[in-house]
Amino acid sequence: MSKKLKIGIFGYGVVGSGLAHVLKNSKGLDASIVKVCVKNAEKERDLDSKLLTTNPDDILNDPEINVVAELIDDAEAAYGIVKKALQKGKHIVSANKKMLAYHVEELIQLQWQHNVSLLYEASACGSIPIIRNLEEYYDNDLLQSVSGILNGSSNYILTKIFNENSDYQIALKEAQDLGYAESDPTSDVGGFDTLYKLILLGVHGFGLFVHPDEVFNCGISNLSTHDIQLASQKGYKIRLIGKVSKVNGNQVNLLVAPKFVKPNEHAYTVDSHYNGVVIQGNFYDNQFMYGKGAGAHPTGSAVLSDITALAYDYKYEYKKLKYYGGLQFTNNMDVEIYLRYSDKKDLSLFNFKEISESLTGKEFNYIIGTLNLSELIKIREQLLEKDIFLAYFGEE
Amino acid sequence: MSKKLKIGIFGYGVVGSGLAHVLKNSKGLDASIVKVCVKNAEKERDLDSKLLTTNPDDILNDPEINVVAELIDDAEAAYGIVKKALQKGKHIVSANKKMLAYHVEELIQLQWQHNVSLLYEASACGSIPIIRNLEEYYDNDLLQSVSGILNGSSNYILTKIFNENSDYQIALKEAQDLGYAESDPTSDVGGFDTLYKLILLGVHGFGLFVHPDEVFNCGISNLSTHDIQLASQKGYKIRLIGKVSKVNGNQVNLLVAPKFVKPNEHAYTVDSHYNGVVIQGNFYDNQFMYGKGAGAHPTGSAVLSDITALAYDYKYEYKKLKYYGGLQFTNNMDVEIYLRYSDKKDLSLFNFKEISESLTGKEFNYIIGTLNLSELIKIREQLLEKDIFLAYFGEE
Repeated sequence: MSKKLKIGIFGYGVVGSGLAHVLKNSKGLDASIVKVCVKNAEKERDLDSKLLTTNPDDILNDPEINVVAELIDDAEAAYGIVKKALQKGKHIVSANKKMLAYHVEELIQLQWQHNVSLLYEASACGSIPIIRNLEEYYDNDLLQSVSGILNGSSNYILTKIFNENSDYQIALKEAQDLGYAESDPTSDVGGFDTLYKLILLGVHGFGLFVHPDEVFNCGISNLSTHDIQLASQKGYKIRLIGKVSKVNGNQVNLLVAPKFVKPNEHAYTVDSHYNGVVIQGNFYDNQFMYGKGAGAHPTGSAVLSDITALAYDYKYEYKKLKYYGGLQFTNNMDVEIYLRYSDKKDLSLFNFKEISESLTGKEFNYIIGTLNLSELIKIREQLLEKDIFLAYFGEE
Repeated sequence: MSKKLKIGIFGYGVVGSGLAHVLKNSKGLDASIVKVCVKNAEKERDLDSKLLTTNPDDILNDPEINVVAELIDDAEAAYGIVKKALQKGKHIVSANKKMLAYHVEELIQLQWQHNVSLLYEASACGSIPIIRNLEEYYDNDLLQSVSGILNGSSNYILTKIFNENSDYQIALKEAQDLGYAESDPTSDVGGFDTLYKLILLGVHGFGLFVHPDEVFNCGISNLSTHDIQLASQKGYKIRLIGKVSKVNGNQVNLLVAPKFVKPNEHAYTVDSHYNGVVIQGNFYDNQFMYGKGAGAHPTGSAVLSDITALAYDYKYEYKKLKYYGGLQFTNNMDVEIYLRYSDKKDLSLFNFKEISESLTGKEFNYIIGTLNLSELIKIREQLLEKDIFLAYFGEE
């Protein structure tokens, strides 16, 4: 049943070298690394230098290679590689959430056309098999929502803040020193990484392709001690949550934002750089999956699981694309938000339907109230320049 | 891709009626119930009476029916039904953990022989897709152990005891009144239900068929307030845990027993009738899956997921049977146990290698020490008659 896998790897950073190490320790699988394409072949690496190349075509044009593991950072370059490799009839394993979030619809068509398999479990929540479970197990129409902590870096920062009274800037610096956050942390703390993963959960959970620009996402970079104190006083932690959920019957919303999390929610228990996902459905209620969301070995082991699956001719079936005909993306959804602001003029941007709490003070001002997400997304660009912080209240 | 499913159901109790209800609300699936075989056709049911029969052959000999959902309690009767249905070329979905624990090896051969599929996700941990994940995702040789709370009834009782200071007998009565425990609770509180599920996790986790009689299992029915107080004083809860783990390099142990659980373990957070499973492996470390372990709708939705999978020709591959050649079951494993006893003569039964704590008192006596599981299993029958309580210390 199992077939011989000849692997070409693009990228030998954290995930690529993690994969090589995991592969070396997985004696059950008949797989070997044939070639590794890197930018700079001179760099010191724990790898036989004969395997190295800087020319992508050495992998793409090698008929012996039947699996391409695409593990580079640059989303546009990754897109070119994956597209070409599919056209060459090679199976793909990718961990590139940004590339997939923008191009997955086209790439699915391509894999069908060329009768190969495109797998990307490692692209969402590292070692947690969330895509595979949405695809294979939560594969009927009972599913109502998938939500959780999908980004380890921002969660590490929020954990330091809420469990150890750390300051945002100090926590960010520490996350960077430990390698949990990039030197430019925008993708993690701005909610973009969470957004890209959420797009993929929408594809496999509800058969819906949503362009990242259509989704409201905001991050934690403006979090202040005022926000932290207020959340703690009210008995909450703040966590950066991605949620895809059925709303209004046959519509689906995607949302990435800081959320006030109660002690009885699963997300409250997810600390440090871990990820945790809650799957909510009719009849089975809440299920929760927890594990390491990032890092060389957890992500490497997720890539390995995809590679093993290829040995058994596994493909995502995209069952939800067939199940659901009429599901539509919507931002027409009321949310209860906390808005902390400095400049009172900024308030005119927000079209609150109802306000339940409002404070104006010397140190800070805030409003808690309800507004429609479709109003919020209109002012997304303006929000980026303001000294405001947003978080929402709601169900897990 | 998806095919028409014509379902014959055996048993219309909690799970059977749950399935019918879930099916009715799953419009995405092309499946219909053709016949339901029950013991007593006269009983009032929320079902078209034309579907009912008391003759198993009305299902087994009906060529139109391509899927049999076996959802009866009686393990021996279930075995006969499943065997015959496989021989008749029908796909099977079963939730009968006891029947499977004893017969799964033979039934797997039969399904291969008759080129049909035998699925049983609902038989272990209700709505948590643990079998599917071991089979499909943790399908390489990185896996080290699978452990957790696999039985909701006993966990409900232990939760009442540890969180609400309830007494064992009162908690058991309450569990029975709520329908979480049977009038004869032996299977749940004696650890047998956990054992049967664990056997299946051993099959899918490590490709190992172990006869239930080979595994040491003990339950919680002798738990006393002394044990509860001691655990609480030391900062533990006691939980009934099933664990299958690699030991001594290429051996595997299965163990069912009460365990002292620390606050930083996942099992500590699993309360009431919920189940929680920790999957531990090289590189990905700990992963945790949590959800409803029993009940009409969670189990019904698990059965539905199997039925949906049949529509896509899904079969368990039993990959581990091929991966692992040399894994052997063993009880040669040292465990640190807490032994509370009344009669000092009983101590002579136990061959402790090392004793770290020992109390003799007016109210109760206990020893904490290390012994080998192979010694413990020899005296299993004798233990049942004694006023002793056993629990172990160890990693999750």
